[in-house]
Amino acid sequence: MPLSKLQGVKLPASADFHVHLRDGPMMELVTPTIRQGGVNTVYVMPNLVPPITTVDHALDYQKRLQAVEPNVHYLMSLYLHETINPETIIEAKKRGITGVKSYPAGVTTNSTSGVVDYSQFYPVFAEMERQEMILNLHGECPSKGDVTVLSAEEQFLPILAELHAQFPKLRIILEHCTTAAAIEAVKKCGPTVAGTITAHHLSIIIDSWAGDPFCFCKPVAKTPADRDALLRAAVSGNPKFFFGSDSAPHPAASKRGGEKIAAGVFTQPYTTQVVIDAFDQACQNGVLKEEQITPEIVEGFMSKFGRAFYGIGEEQKEFITIDNKGEKIVDILQSDKIDVVPFRKTQETWSVSWS
Amino acid sequence: MPLSKLQGVKLPASADFHVHLRDGPMMELVTPTIRQGGVNTVYVMPNLVPPITTVDHALDYQKRLQAVEPNVHYLMSLYLHETINPETIIEAKKRGITGVKSYPAGVTTNSTSGVVDYSQFYPVFAEMERQEMILNLHGECPSKGDVTVLSAEEQFLPILAELHAQFPKLRIILEHCTTAAAIEAVKKCGPTVAGTITAHHLSIIIDSWAGDPFCFCKPVAKTPADRDALLRAAVSGNPKFFFGSDSAPHPAASKRGGEKIAAGVFTQPYTTQVVIDAFDQACQNGVLKEEQITPEIVEGFMSKFGRAFYGIGEEQKEFITIDNKGEKIVDILQSDKIDVVPFRKTQETWSVSWS
Repeated sequence: MPLSKLQGVKLPASADFHVHLRDGPMMELVTPTIRQGGVNTVYVMPNLVPPITTVDHALDYQKRLQAVEPNVHYLMSLYLHETINPETIIEAKKRGITGVKSYPAGVTTNSTSGVVDYSQFYPVFAEMERQEMILNLHGECPSKGDVTVLSAEEQFLPILAELHAQFPKLRIILEHCTTAAAIEAVKKCGPTVAGTITAHHLSIIIDSWAGDPFCFCKPVAKTPADRDALLRAAVSGNPKFFFGSDSAPHPAASKRGGEKIAAGVFTQPYTTQVVIDAFDQACQNGVLKEEQITPEIVEGFMSKFGRAFYGIGEEQKEFITIDNKGEKIVDILQSDKIDVVPFRKTQETWSVSWS
Repeated sequence: MPLSKLQGVKLPASADFHVHLRDGPMMELVTPTIRQGGVNTVYVMPNLVPPITTVDHALDYQKRLQAVEPNVHYLMSLYLHETINPETIIEAKKRGITGVKSYPAGVTTNSTSGVVDYSQFYPVFAEMERQEMILNLHGECPSKGDVTVLSAEEQFLPILAELHAQFPKLRIILEHCTTAAAIEAVKKCGPTVAGTITAHHLSIIIDSWAGDPFCFCKPVAKTPADRDALLRAAVSGNPKFFFGSDSAPHPAASKRGGEKIAAGVFTQPYTTQVVIDAFDQACQNGVLKEEQITPEIVEGFMSKFGRAFYGIGEEQKEFITIDNKGEKIVDILQSDKIDVVPFRKTQETWSVSWS
């Protein structure tokens, strides 16, 4: 029986440090599914339309989220934008905003307002460093010339190194790492640099999304060697690497039927389950060894390391029990207004219950 | 004005050495578009469902095609399958079949019946060599282990080299080359080995199909460096490289809306136009030089080299005139029964008229 030592194990509630909860009907549909994935704390990304560039907007959004699901702790972020200046950062810290997310212009969903040149933001980063706020980076260069979706992340890594060198005390997170190169780049930096890894990038590769819109996201899944590097990082016990689902819901019609396929994989209701399943599969394929996947390792990746990096303290109140009980992922999640198709729909996965 | 020396030029009718014309309503819809692309001769691929594995089936299919569009010369092929033996080859040659197409099992549309092991077919290849029939290879290894859709073609190249070494007189075509490595592998072989290049692979790269189902096909488009190698081969004047569109129509619903996106780019009504446009773009991007793109070069790639390799003689009766008149690619092609979305729909391209 695969990963038998994890069956029936009790762990602190998971934390998901990279979620997209959208707004309106989609927000109402997906926010209640956070706890279904064994998660009680989320870091909410700011790429709404229009993006969240003011503290008022972020806190208003937080209130709307709390109204839909009050039993989740929402950490809020701002969208790095030319209207954000050091004064914004001072106010943000004072009023409880956790971090700032940076999107290179055009690389993914709702990123047309994104960054073209990082040096213009150095005064903002300096204030963030002083205020101990977090900088989240979508680490891809826009595709042009020889840069493609395959090389966009690797091409970005010098920018990560440079930002870290300029601001060594600034906590920087390279979001949703998808390459072995990114893992190495994060390791090479000091302790203020971390990397999140999604649930889906622990299992999919380029073949998965070539022809399957529900596996298509940015940064794109790449080679088996890259995926294996992500798996090894996730179970390494290295506190730089922790979970951020990048669960990115789109209506089913935007994943099919449109002119272009919206980028994003939706995992919110099954985050802990799908991560454990990915470790399980990796053991079955000989990429990981069963003895590596201890409860301590899982707890580190899914809860402890991220909470420590974000400075919010260990989870001591809520616990989940994980089990290989063959929970079946639904075909589609829907309200009377909107729908979204989950990653690995109709497949069996591990199960999570609140202790 | 780009490629000005090609404006108003008269060329022999193009030949398309790799077409998918399907059957039933789709066949009726797309076959009449062959001549719209400036083509009067096609090599028809056999991957119907069920695949064409008997001479009777192939000739019956040919009759159906001729009934729909009598003004095209249809060269027919068989689908390499365990039921095909040396006797089949003898009969095929006698009754006017041109070649045999080999699909590795599972790599693309309707390839579940394909090849797992080439050595079992050596007696068939030996007879094909004697009978001077052509072997067309879909050159990709099935994805498994470390092989992905990105490396599948390069992994196949040793098989090409081996087949050529075993059967040096057998005319072998590596279909729809998509990598610089494939171009080099074809060059390294003797004069009996050629490679076709599609219209779409002369312009698209991985970014094009990441999120756009109408640019998704097998073998997948890859890097700018690969595309540039295809462009250079297409205008090199090397008679080993000639045009085969791999135009692969699927109903719009199969490209959107389904569970998986059907692989295939549809270019049949605009083949010559889109190729010239790709050369034009490449000149504008500095990948090719205008002075390279002579009428002789275009004629070689689009008509002369393929006809010579296939042994069917130069085109002497029908001619086309090409012009940069801003022909607009339709949004969709449809009958009352079926539809198909063309590559680069709604965009402007070169135009072709029959002289």
